[in-house]
Amino acid sequence: MANTFGKIFRLTSFGESHGQAIGGIIDGCPAGLKLDIDHIQNQLDRRSPGQSKITTSRKEDDKVEILSGVFDNYTLGTPIGFIVRNKNQNSNDYQSLKSAFRPSHADYTYEKKYGLRDFKGGGRSSARETLARVVAGAIAQQILILQGVSIKAYVSKVKNIFLDKKYYEYELENIDNNIIRCPDFEKSKEMISLINETKQNGDTVGGEITAVAFGVPVGWGEPVFDKLNADLAKAMLSINAVKGFYYGSDQTEKFGSEVNDVLEDISGKTKSNNSGGIQGGISNGNDIYFNVSFKPVSTLMKSQETINKNGEKVIIDPKGRHDPCVLPRAVPIVEAMTALVLVDNFLISKTNKIL
Amino acid sequence: MANTFGKIFRLTSFGESHGQAIGGIIDGCPAGLKLDIDHIQNQLDRRSPGQSKITTSRKEDDKVEILSGVFDNYTLGTPIGFIVRNKNQNSNDYQSLKSAFRPSHADYTYEKKYGLRDFKGGGRSSARETLARVVAGAIAQQILILQGVSIKAYVSKVKNIFLDKKYYEYELENIDNNIIRCPDFEKSKEMISLINETKQNGDTVGGEITAVAFGVPVGWGEPVFDKLNADLAKAMLSINAVKGFYYGSDQTEKFGSEVNDVLEDISGKTKSNNSGGIQGGISNGNDIYFNVSFKPVSTLMKSQETINKNGEKVIIDPKGRHDPCVLPRAVPIVEAMTALVLVDNFLISKTNKIL
Amino acid sequence: MANTFGKIFRLTSFGESHGQAIGGIIDGCPAGLKLDIDHIQNQLDRRSPGQSKITTSRKEDDKVEILSGVFDNYTLGTPIGFIVRNKNQNSNDYQSLKSAFRPSHADYTYEKKYGLRDFKGGGRSSARETLARVVAGAIAQQILILQGVSIKAYVSKVKNIFLDKKYYEYELENIDNNIIRCPDFEKSKEMISLINETKQNGDTVGGEITAVAFGVPVGWGEPVFDKLNADLAKAMLSINAVKGFYYGSDQTEKFGSEVNDVLEDISGKTKSNNSGGIQGGISNGNDIYFNVSFKPVSTLMKSQETINKNGEKVIIDPKGRHDPCVLPRAVPIVEAMTALVLVDNFLISKTNKIL
Amino acid sequence: MANTFGKIFRLTSFGESHGQAIGGIIDGCPAGLKLDIDHIQNQLDRRSPGQSKITTSRKEDDKVEILSGVFDNYTLGTPIGFIVRNKNQNSNDYQSLKSAFRPSHADYTYEKKYGLRDFKGGGRSSARETLARVVAGAIAQQILILQGVSIKAYVSKVKNIFLDKKYYEYELENIDNNIIRCPDFEKSKEMISLINETKQNGDTVGGEITAVAFGVPVGWGEPVFDKLNADLAKAMLSINAVKGFYYGSDQTEKFGSEVNDVLEDISGKTKSNNSGGIQGGISNGNDIYFNVSFKPVSTLMKSQETINKNGEKVIIDPKGRHDPCVLPRAVPIVEAMTALVLVDNFLISKTNKIL
Repeated sequence: MANTFGKIFRLTSFGESHGQAIGGIIDGCPAGLKLDIDHIQNQLDRRSPGQSKITTSRKEDDKVEILSGVFDNYTLGTPIGFIVRNKNQNSNDYQSLKSAFRPSHADYTYEKKYGLRDFKGGGRSSARETLARVVAGAIAQQILILQGVSIKAYVSKVKNIFLDKKYYEYELENIDNNIIRCPDFEKSKEMISLINETKQNGDTVGGEITAVAFGVPVGWGEPVFDKLNADLAKAMLSINAVKGFYYGSDQTEKFGSEVNDVLEDISGKTKSNNSGGIQGGISNGNDIYFNVSFKPVSTLMKSQETINKNGEKVIIDPKGRHDPCVLPRAVPIVEAMTALVLVDNFLISKTNKIL
Repeated sequence: MANTFGKIFRLTSFGESHGQAIGGIIDGCPAGLKLDIDHIQNQLDRRSPGQSKITTSRKEDDKVEILSGVFDNYTLGTPIGFIVRNKNQNSNDYQSLKSAFRPSHADYTYEKKYGLRDFKGGGRSSARETLARVVAGAIAQQILILQGVSIKAYVSKVKNIFLDKKYYEYELENIDNNIIRCPDFEKSKEMISLINETKQNGDTVGGEITAVAFGVPVGWGEPVFDKLNADLAKAMLSINAVKGFYYGSDQTEKFGSEVNDVLEDISGKTKSNNSGGIQGGISNGNDIYFNVSFKPVSTLMKSQETINKNGEKVIIDPKGRHDPCVLPRAVPIVEAMTALVLVDNFLISKTNKIL
Repeated sequence: MANTFGKIFRLTSFGESHGQAIGGIIDGCPAGLKLDIDHIQNQLDRRSPGQSKITTSRKEDDKVEILSGVFDNYTLGTPIGFIVRNKNQNSNDYQSLKSAFRPSHADYTYEKKYGLRDFKGGGRSSARETLARVVAGAIAQQILILQGVSIKAYVSKVKNIFLDKKYYEYELENIDNNIIRCPDFEKSKEMISLINETKQNGDTVGGEITAVAFGVPVGWGEPVFDKLNADLAKAMLSINAVKGFYYGSDQTEKFGSEVNDVLEDISGKTKSNNSGGIQGGISNGNDIYFNVSFKPVSTLMKSQETINKNGEKVIIDPKGRHDPCVLPRAVPIVEAMTALVLVDNFLISKTNKIL
Repeated sequence: MANTFGKIFRLTSFGESHGQAIGGIIDGCPAGLKLDIDHIQNQLDRRSPGQSKITTSRKEDDKVEILSGVFDNYTLGTPIGFIVRNKNQNSNDYQSLKSAFRPSHADYTYEKKYGLRDFKGGGRSSARETLARVVAGAIAQQILILQGVSIKAYVSKVKNIFLDKKYYEYELENIDNNIIRCPDFEKSKEMISLINETKQNGDTVGGEITAVAFGVPVGWGEPVFDKLNADLAKAMLSINAVKGFYYGSDQTEKFGSEVNDVLEDISGKTKSNNSGGIQGGISNGNDIYFNVSFKPVSTLMKSQETINKNGEKVIIDPKGRHDPCVLPRAVPIVEAMTALVLVDNFLISKTNKIL
């Protein structure tokens, strides 16, 4: 198990989906940050289920309780412990999964790796674990905003419906204006319609999220192994259901002479930004942007064939309430993980030069 | 700077392209491994320039010298220090780059991050750094083979020429039979022809490498942050010129019901393998496979516009000898990084259960 | 801030003395351990204040609440989150310390390092933080007992009263039979008498704790930097009020020929054990023993001169209830930190050999 | 094996005593440091054998070769790789130890831990490994001097001959004026005489080294686990032959009221300095000082009884040339490890505050 993320600004998290609580400890948060608790709760609410008709109808009234590290609203430099109590979990929905392994789920791998598993709601493998990421990411965002850095993510593809404009052609402030969190009004209607149809069929769909970090100064990222892009890739691939990561523009089918980014001035501004704001693993002062691919979630609302612990073939019937498409709720998670990577590299960059 | 990769089996590397040597230290290699030095050298030779007409004509007679950690051919459990001397480097080729920043290179970002840089041959940002990865990866492969694990990578796409069959439809033993390291004979001829044409134009092309790990048992990978797929993504994105990573089959445009992998028996074998051998971040006993995207390398053999340290516009003319396409030489690097991730997760997995 | 201890079996802790809770996350605990919660609570009770007339009369009804990582009493291999709520804290006792810095306390250093501090009860610098260590240490002990390893610590010196026999000349099972946790009945009476006298004078005393680990097999400890003795030294010096560490017998005033430990047989048993069970940083199969020195705690129950935030001289009067001697309550803390070091090195040792 | 020391400024080392070379990689050294190579070599020379009649007569012409990370004498921010070739090693001296385990040496523990060992000259367990520490420590010192921090260590005790004055009562600039590296002229003569006598008897003696760090500002050290004193303890106990560590004044036999350090002014200056410059694990602006205890080295120049791999009793006769007392040569090692701890904590402290 490896439940710590980051080198200086480190989140360590815990919690099973149907256990007592999900929580975490943020170590390495600098002292003297005036904490905006409402902002943290707001990010949690953006992640929470039941917020719209296209997400699961489960209600998870997720309230964060901060237990340490903050004094009179300012961070102390000591570890910030926090918990979100699990409520409204209906473990009875999962009794049938006690011995059966859901297809494409982590049931089988956890059972074999550890010799036992918490079968209720997926246990530790549940995306409910990302609550802790969102809390820590919100705090990271509050530090980044002081550096002039802001992060925006949005749904850019649902199944075969995808945005054909670049991120800078949209008003990214409007992302939350629709329930799919897509800045393209026409496409968002199509996406919602597709998701509703999918839901009615008891099926699921995946897609892509695009994320952009504005205002990152030159010099963040620690080559050769902790290149900024490598840290981002790891962060994204650590999110449930993520299959792929791509930063900058798609250059596979281009000649080098078509995609090279020519420097305009000493600030680092380049004429094009195919590099996606990172060169040699280090931010170059331009916008950082990347795409994250999500598979359709494995939990279907239809019967599926599988095997049980004894290797016998069984049919599992759907129980509980689940998302037909996790993308809208994954937007704040992608933002949170981006913020964790950036704040960590910001803090490390303070040690790069002798003067 | 972060020049250590891995948690238990750790490579720490050093070296600038035109410095004294590239080298590294492998810490955490178990004791008692009979080391096959020829295999290490062979992997280095697969990475070395000048091996064919489609790679750079630079000769880098890269001989590894092992300095510690091995006794009578067996690993001691102590750190394995090694160096590869830099020879045949022609630093004069780089004098013109002393003050100019090459487009889409790390010249500018290193200069700004550190306040100075070694401008010769790209210094630390040169892909020559990957020599150390190949040495460590070869040792990792020797451990993995004892666990029944083998790794094969191959070029699956060069610009718009791509393989349309799956990895299991090819004879992967034949990869090294052609200079592009592609198992599809017809496609390889097209790729080579395209690269030669590109070279004549002084231009460059990118593409994709597909990698497969056979024989990985159930249970490797440490969720939630060190999911096996997350570790692989980081490993791949830490390689020069890599832009993207995708594991398993492309599921973005499918319904969940189309891609769920149904378990066949208690060994973990699934009817389909869209998951790419990993579920919930843990290997499930099926083949692990993934795609890695490379951009066209930034160094062109034609004049390019840029700016210098004073912010003045300058023209840089090509010097030195460079690859029009790095993919064939990147194959052993992708294999090496895959091996490093797998051996590390193998060793950690020994601590998962109390019994 | 660095609030994680360990490499594989890792405790990350949080909590200020007068905050909401003290807690922690244990990551890397192997799956399948049947957890004895009573044993954990019992260790906490041994650490708790108010247990005898020679400790502080503060009551801190410290009940551990385990929030994750355990299912039907067995560890899941997932992180074990836990909290101990802070109750019975009387923060009013500390209002006078809002701006004054107590002599030899961390008040001044925290204020300067972080720019602010939680002045109530010492905040994060309070020894109340060690609650989390005792919880994690108790779990570590439960793993170690399965390996045949047991740990015993006892008070071997209070001010100038010290034991003149070796650890193996006492019945270490009887340590808890007296309130000072000393296996020497006569000496314990003298110690208690001295502490009572000291308490009446509003003063404090320090001393030493001796710890022994029985049954550690050959081969734990990771040279060169993570020698078992180096890990133990760090663990002990990280405990509040600890000033020194010494392992094995005091050899400073002996010739080499007097202290060399001669091997008796291939099991590793030596005729003498001046080495304290560790050679070259690796356990050699003999008893591991060491001494830990504690200073008299800085909080006196008498008036003391100091300065405040403005640099003005002020007198601070004693408030709250404090220990005249922390040693009896530190015994379970020393045992806990010893267990954390040993279990971590046990787990790592599983990766040492290829076969 | 754990061969990396430090969190930001990290030394990873390698090398067996009779292998090809001892070396290391320093990662995390800030860019822009003008490197003084002569100073590094000078520190190596202070550690080298054969420098006086009281050290071993082995000649180890230890020349450091820096392979990377430095450009035109300035550090690049990239890893600094370096090696020191092993010369003048006479492995024939060690053939008799191929199967015998020397008393109180690491021969037995390495053999059992790893299943094999390099028996020549102690292999990795040889103190020759500390060469790498001295190189890295010298670079660390060059960074510290820019922060106004200097480190002095000296021999304060050899067997029963000990200094009775405090460190501030001596001229520490004169330490190298005598071959024992003791600032007390009279005592140094006694020590040298005792060591010579010991050498004639084929025996060995231990003692103590006192180290002082002057000029450390308030705020270095990362509680709760990485207290500055805990990091120093680990650093010292990781040195060969070290048995104990004690920082500040010996307070075990004092009342709290006798040893509390009263603040004089807002700079942190205290009337007394029993705390040894550290409170709550954080430097308080006063001198940091501590004592390190060394055992007599285990290698005697007389016959000793032991067992061999088959468990048979054998007699080993002395071979090679060895130090009767390692303390004078250990002085630069203690300084180096102190510097590594301090520079690491300096760099981390840059991330403590938001402003």
